[in-house]
Amino acid sequence: MQLDMYNIIEKKKHGRSLSSEEIKWVISGYMSGSIKDYQMSALLMSIYFNQMDDRETADLTDAMLYSGRTLNFNDPTVVDKHSTGGIGDKASFILAPIAAACGVKVPMIAGRGLGFTGGTVDKVEAIKGFKTNLNLDEFGKQLLENGIVLMGQTDEIAPADKRIYALRDVSATIDSIPLITASIMSKKLAEGANGIVMDIKVGSGAFMSSKAEAKKLAKSIIKTADRFDKKSVCLITNMNQPLGHNIGHSLEIIESLETLKGKGPKDLTDLSLSLAAHMVVIAGIEKSYNKALKKCKQALSSHKALDVFKNLIKIQGGDTSVIDDYSKLDLAPCKLEVKATKSGYIKTFKNKKLGFLCTDLGGGRKTKSDSIDFGVGFIVHKKLSDKVKLNETVVTIYHRKTQQKLAEKIAQEINEQVIKITKTKPAKAPVIYDVLKSKKDKSK
Amino acid sequence: MQLDMYNIIEKKKHGRSLSSEEIKWVISGYMSGSIKDYQMSALLMSIYFNQMDDRETADLTDAMLYSGRTLNFNDPTVVDKHSTGGIGDKASFILAPIAAACGVKVPMIAGRGLGFTGGTVDKVEAIKGFKTNLNLDEFGKQLLENGIVLMGQTDEIAPADKRIYALRDVSATIDSIPLITASIMSKKLAEGANGIVMDIKVGSGAFMSSKAEAKKLAKSIIKTADRFDKKSVCLITNMNQPLGHNIGHSLEIIESLETLKGKGPKDLTDLSLSLAAHMVVIAGIEKSYNKALKKCKQALSSHKALDVFKNLIKIQGGDTSVIDDYSKLDLAPCKLEVKATKSGYIKTFKNKKLGFLCTDLGGGRKTKSDSIDFGVGFIVHKKLSDKVKLNETVVTIYHRKTQQKLAEKIAQEINEQVIKITKTKPAKAPVIYDVLKSKKDKSK
Repeated sequence: MQLDMYNIIEKKKHGRSLSSEEIKWVISGYMSGSIKDYQMSALLMSIYFNQMDDRETADLTDAMLYSGRTLNFNDPTVVDKHSTGGIGDKASFILAPIAAACGVKVPMIAGRGLGFTGGTVDKVEAIKGFKTNLNLDEFGKQLLENGIVLMGQTDEIAPADKRIYALRDVSATIDSIPLITASIMSKKLAEGANGIVMDIKVGSGAFMSSKAEAKKLAKSIIKTADRFDKKSVCLITNMNQPLGHNIGHSLEIIESLETLKGKGPKDLTDLSLSLAAHMVVIAGIEKSYNKALKKCKQALSSHKALDVFKNLIKIQGGDTSVIDDYSKLDLAPCKLEVKATKSGYIKTFKNKKLGFLCTDLGGGRKTKSDSIDFGVGFIVHKKLSDKVKLNETVVTIYHRKTQQKLAEKIAQEINEQVIKITKTKPAKAPVIYDVLKSKKDKSK
Repeated sequence: MQLDMYNIIEKKKHGRSLSSEEIKWVISGYMSGSIKDYQMSALLMSIYFNQMDDRETADLTDAMLYSGRTLNFNDPTVVDKHSTGGIGDKASFILAPIAAACGVKVPMIAGRGLGFTGGTVDKVEAIKGFKTNLNLDEFGKQLLENGIVLMGQTDEIAPADKRIYALRDVSATIDSIPLITASIMSKKLAEGANGIVMDIKVGSGAFMSSKAEAKKLAKSIIKTADRFDKKSVCLITNMNQPLGHNIGHSLEIIESLETLKGKGPKDLTDLSLSLAAHMVVIAGIEKSYNKALKKCKQALSSHKALDVFKNLIKIQGGDTSVIDDYSKLDLAPCKLEVKATKSGYIKTFKNKKLGFLCTDLGGGRKTKSDSIDFGVGFIVHKKLSDKVKLNETVVTIYHRKTQQKLAEKIAQEINEQVIKITKTKPAKAPVIYDVLKSKKDKSK
């Protein structure tokens, strides 16, 4: 039977499963231009409403994966990590060197920031000279030689995902579990990862606001990884406040380096160690999580992970002197302290709002073509359930000389809209809510 | 607040109602090109899934209505009829002259055929010289002077509907009650109709396959008409077999003329009279349906309706000699008789299949740019619950000399796939299932 996009949309609209052949045909037709954007967006919306089953999700992943080049290292120790993104999430800079120091090969292809979240590639570019526009051959070579590599997204990898993501971004079809799964997994599989550790963030500063949705995504990722015979672990983590204290590009590099020196905040350190330990297990380097965690802690305390990061900066052309001299980073010269308007405890954090305020300062992108001011941002001194006194500093705003009025406005908005202080002390929420693994996974 | 298409799609996706302002903004943005097809199709698919309430449907109708020119005759006797389309549906050629003969002004802007159904404009063009490409000024003038006019769709009337319909047609978003309602009503209101009689067809040869869906559409049409202070009546009618006996352009004109001469088949005659009678009531010419029906029957038996049709042909440049000489129509010269393969009663009719077989012969369009062979088609001699004997003719195929093999193949498909004969006589189904009116309507 001849395939036809109208009938395929109609089929999904009525909740029926698309065949492997149909899914393959859609992706190749969309890439060749015979299927138009307006048909694709109608199909994507039907998928939003009627979902895809596990087999369809795997088929979509497969079709997108093979729309571009694929790497295959035939090496079980090649394991990547992916975070769904949040405020102050700089964990990659800590966990990847830790995992690499333990023998994992970490092939990072990372994104840029947009809206309320920053991107790993933007953040690392705050280190002068750090080159992220590698090609796929350089990427593979560096991974095998050095065990760690970090590059920006490339048209070579899963170009179908790039085009479909751009369409989802304007047609309000981002928040679909099968589409998110295929988008993430197609890229991870194409870059040659044999396992993936996912950090699925939930809360006021994350794309997912409910644990139930996060769990659905976790299950979908794990089932898809299973179908490709890849290992996977998903952590569902707390994004109701920034991870660590620093928000903004240079500020986050500083906090990452402090953490690699063993002086980082507890939430960021713990989460990075846990993610790295899962990578070590998945890579087959350690059988149990506890042993892996111990190994990761050693890699951190011995500064082996810091050395790996230093080496990564060096190989990719960055200025390694930044490690011992933070003044090598561009940091905005003016500080404005946001003072608590009453005494009590921090009860809630409108985390996403904080992300948008950072973007307002220039420390993020409103549209894809915006440039970023690496130097601006926030240090959040008080976090959830912390005690604060009237007039105590809760946040420090880093801004440019010309931004005095804007900074004052932002300070007011932080007090009025971001932080809520109450009399009674709220219970402390965990950083990691849940860990989900494949049923095939027998590790402890 | 600034309106934004992404947020509007998102809102409808989550099942919320769009404001009047948002709906107006969407239609004007789509017409100006600032809203792209791929966003519009995503919104249409969200409307398919989450519906629109009565107020939204009326707002959409309004926005589409005012995307083009509007006529206003301030004349309660201007009443139009719309059929959702079916196989062998030539009722317009009978009911419009009957209604006009009773004093209704009938402003017909009709469509062309595609797929399994023919179009009124194509069918009337089987009459040599009949001009359907009037402009709106000619249309209005002729309506007031002659009480009846028939033209093809024009860009002057509801151009937003034309563009949105074209997009629905390729994005599988045709079958949405609010979208169908707004599409029909925007055109009827723009052409200046003060009332509308709808023929909503249900069955194996209709777009709607369930009475429940047809009833939903009827209620939606009536509620929308109410909101615009227009009168409306919806008939839900049987499309499980062809209306009358003839399918194909010239064949349908012949059957229409026979019916106007009082020699038509009962189902076609009855339905045409009923629809016309409702138009007469809605126009305020008669208070009760029974009186209106009597008037319509007189208009038919006295040949007053036939004279109106003759005059319509004359005014619009057609050859009126066709009325007494069917050889003036282009009719395919070859006939192939489809013989019953067993004795019994006609149990089911795969009506849509018959429509597609007519298109296969050239008597319909597979794509919009196809030309039509007016001369080909079918005469269906045996209809549902009719008795047939082995080898008795059930259908006659009219075809061209070059189509002998195709006609034989079609004959076989009619026997194997279209008609099902059983031993026991099935109950006869009514032509009209149901009549729905506005609650405001106090007529009997």
